Amino acid sequence: MTQVKTRILLDPEETPKHFINIVPYLRRKLDPPLNPLTDEPMPPEALEAIFARECVKQEASTEKRIRIPEEVREGLMHFSRPTPLQRAIRLEKYLKTPARIYFKREDVSPTGSHKLNTALTQAYYAQQQGVERLATETGAGQWGSAVALSCSYLGLEAMVYMVRISYDQKKYRGALMRSYGGEVVPSPSTRTEFGRKILTENPDHPGTLGIAISEALEDTMKSDRTKYTLGSVLNHVLLHQTVIGQETIEQLNMVEETPDEVIGCVGGGSNFAGLSYPMLASDDFTNTKFIAAEPSACPTLTEGRYCYDFGDTAGMTPKLKMYSLGASFTPPKIHAGGLRYHGVAPTISMLYEDKKIEAKAYGQIDVLNAGITFAKTEGIIPAPESAHAIKTAIDSALDAKENGREKVIVFGLSGHGHFDMLAYEALMQGELENT
Amino acid sequence: MTQVKTRILLDPEETPKHFINIVPYLRRKLDPPLNPLTDEPMPPEALEAIFARECVKQEASTEKRIRIPEEVREGLMHFSRPTPLQRAIRLEKYLKTPARIYFKREDVSPTGSHKLNTALTQAYYAQQQGVERLATETGAGQWGSAVALSCSYLGLEAMVYMVRISYDQKKYRGALMRSYGGEVVPSPSTRTEFGRKILTENPDHPGTLGIAISEALEDTMKSDRTKYTLGSVLNHVLLHQTVIGQETIEQLNMVEETPDEVIGCVGGGSNFAGLSYPMLASDDFTNTKFIAAEPSACPTLTEGRYCYDFGDTAGMTPKLKMYSLGASFTPPKIHAGGLRYHGVAPTISMLYEDKKIEAKAYGQIDVLNAGITFAKTEGIIPAPESAHAIKTAIDSALDAKENGREKVIVFGLSGHGHFDMLAYEALMQGELENT
Repeated sequence: MTQVKTRILLDPEETPKHFINIVPYLRRKLDPPLNPLTDEPMPPEALEAIFARECVKQEASTEKRIRIPEEVREGLMHFSRPTPLQRAIRLEKYLKTPARIYFKREDVSPTGSHKLNTALTQAYYAQQQGVERLATETGAGQWGSAVALSCSYLGLEAMVYMVRISYDQKKYRGALMRSYGGEVVPSPSTRTEFGRKILTENPDHPGTLGIAISEALEDTMKSDRTKYTLGSVLNHVLLHQTVIGQETIEQLNMVEETPDEVIGCVGGGSNFAGLSYPMLASDDFTNTKFIAAEPSACPTLTEGRYCYDFGDTAGMTPKLKMYSLGASFTPPKIHAGGLRYHGVAPTISMLYEDKKIEAKAYGQIDVLNAGITFAKTEGIIPAPESAHAIKTAIDSALDAKENGREKVIVFGLSGHGHFDMLAYEALMQGELENT
Repeated sequence: MTQVKTRILLDPEETPKHFINIVPYLRRKLDPPLNPLTDEPMPPEALEAIFARECVKQEASTEKRIRIPEEVREGLMHFSRPTPLQRAIRLEKYLKTPARIYFKREDVSPTGSHKLNTALTQAYYAQQQGVERLATETGAGQWGSAVALSCSYLGLEAMVYMVRISYDQKKYRGALMRSYGGEVVPSPSTRTEFGRKILTENPDHPGTLGIAISEALEDTMKSDRTKYTLGSVLNHVLLHQTVIGQETIEQLNMVEETPDEVIGCVGGGSNFAGLSYPMLASDDFTNTKFIAAEPSACPTLTEGRYCYDFGDTAGMTPKLKMYSLGASFTPPKIHAGGLRYHGVAPTISMLYEDKKIEAKAYGQIDVLNAGITFAKTEGIIPAPESAHAIKTAIDSALDAKENGREKVIVFGLSGHGHFDMLAYEALMQGELENT
């Protein structure tokens, strides 16, 4: 029996030493963030009231590579970097496809997703400048878990505003964050003026990511020992995720493969960017297609507009030039909570506008069924977010079968679904609509 | 900064090629199983009505090494073997201990525990003899998940009787098993005569592992296309787990460490045996202490009797010579469901009786607090079962600190606690008793 190499591992010491910055590789200059009150371009320093100084610096950086601090790199290694690249050999057999399918396993992070890469980095920069507490929001809970663990690792306090519907549905996520020592409240909460205002109007408001961001920002601005930390969208956040793609390139080299397609799910875009940016910044992948997979219930790229918009609901964030469904858009309550966001990262938006990347949208029944197929063949129950990438990969592999041609597909398994079993249960009970 | 090697990885190709059989290494001959009706010694063949033929053969084997079928080995590799051995460097720092603490990560299995090692092996042997369906029971759900995935992998049907209290508390576990294509019912169920009898007497019966075993056995005996599969206690089950200890020995060699203490949690004993038996079968570990950690709510080794007893509640299984609290013992509803079993493996019982291994018992508040400490330092939320081993390791590390001496501690992280967050939530809400 010929042994196919199905799990491609790197040594902890091979964890990347730099982040790869996509900005200098873009065809055009990024449009600057605008002051939400005046619509004037904002100097980066204005963001220092909210974010750690080093993050603000990175937000505007045009350096191609930025060194990862040794303490951060050690933390990434401690928490399972580099992650495996794995060949989905059983999925291939099940689909009877000539395509070779690889997936990058961010699910092995102790918090269950790729989010720790930037949470740890941001927390480190904040700690270095004397910050004692981080405030943030979370939807599905992957980001909040990563922030809570990062704070515990570095001796900071963590304050997490969790979208109420997720807080109620995913009690285990809240418990995980609390286990790490984080404080978690459902948003809208009574902790902030904005939260109280919304609760007065509607005591049963299910919350949105936009509202939770507004709450975390208000919390930050009221406390001088607190900084805010964001899990997606901004340049520096996506930057920190590029360890994913750098490792993937190394691992593909080890099995001498060049991908025809690289697929990632897209909410704010951090997972997709983490996987694809190091390849988009390289000359070795000019024949590779990059595909962003999003929910048809929140079709930011496929149906949104490329325009300046707020990142939150209250209009407290700078305006960003991005694909958006509008800052007041409330997506249906689909189970991929991490993709229920009205906007998408400015860098991804520009790459999409310039046709360097493509996008596809899928209904949640199709997506979760793909997740079940993946669980049955590869054993891993994927996060509903990640299942969008799996659906795209499966469709592509079936297409390869139909056309009888080989193809190399790489997708990002951004996280596991252990805290999302409610979604799969609802699917199996026939309770979902394919929105 | 000196880099300490904190994650010790083996290549997939280094997955063990043999199981290590402890039986020929025991000082005395094992007492034979007795026929439950006649109390006469049972010939192994009598078990073939229930178990796969090869499992029955292995149950009575005195070979020192048994070859792992290549298809099984490939499956083990596909599902993440070899698993990492990791140094708990952050836990050490937090405890300020001179001890070096290593843990073997069975939590990286896609079903979240060590159980897949034997589930896959048993399912393979059953499939090889033409069996189409496996029936089993599960307590906490780790075993049922492993059986469901193994059946999916090999094209068999899976039928899981899940202890009702766990079924109700751990809805996500049921959903996971169903995602893998398994059928899951709460036990006592209406599927079997024994289940119906119990439900007639008490419609709200919370179930026990003993009852669920009786149901799965009755199911098996009524169907000629079905075999039964057990997740612990028996020789062949423990045998299949010895891949864990063999890898651990290799990994300890890589960092040139010899453990002073090897610690595992014990319910039926499969995780403890998997880690320790390859060392107990070797001459290189004569100065190593082996410690079994159990719940004080179900103190089988520390307070049980060494005698012949049934494995189930209905008295359908052969009687085994083992430490037992009595087949009718109903343990309190602690959260470490996998350790709520009245008996312990005959081989472990004999080793304990012969003082080759030690045992310690802990209350669940102390155990879960140790789990939280581990989550905060190492990032991984452990299964409540595994937290027993962590509690033992922490106590030992603190002892080393008090005595100011170095020490090498290795413990088995038998699984993660993603499906057990209710336990930690109850702990943090102050709802638990330290039983």
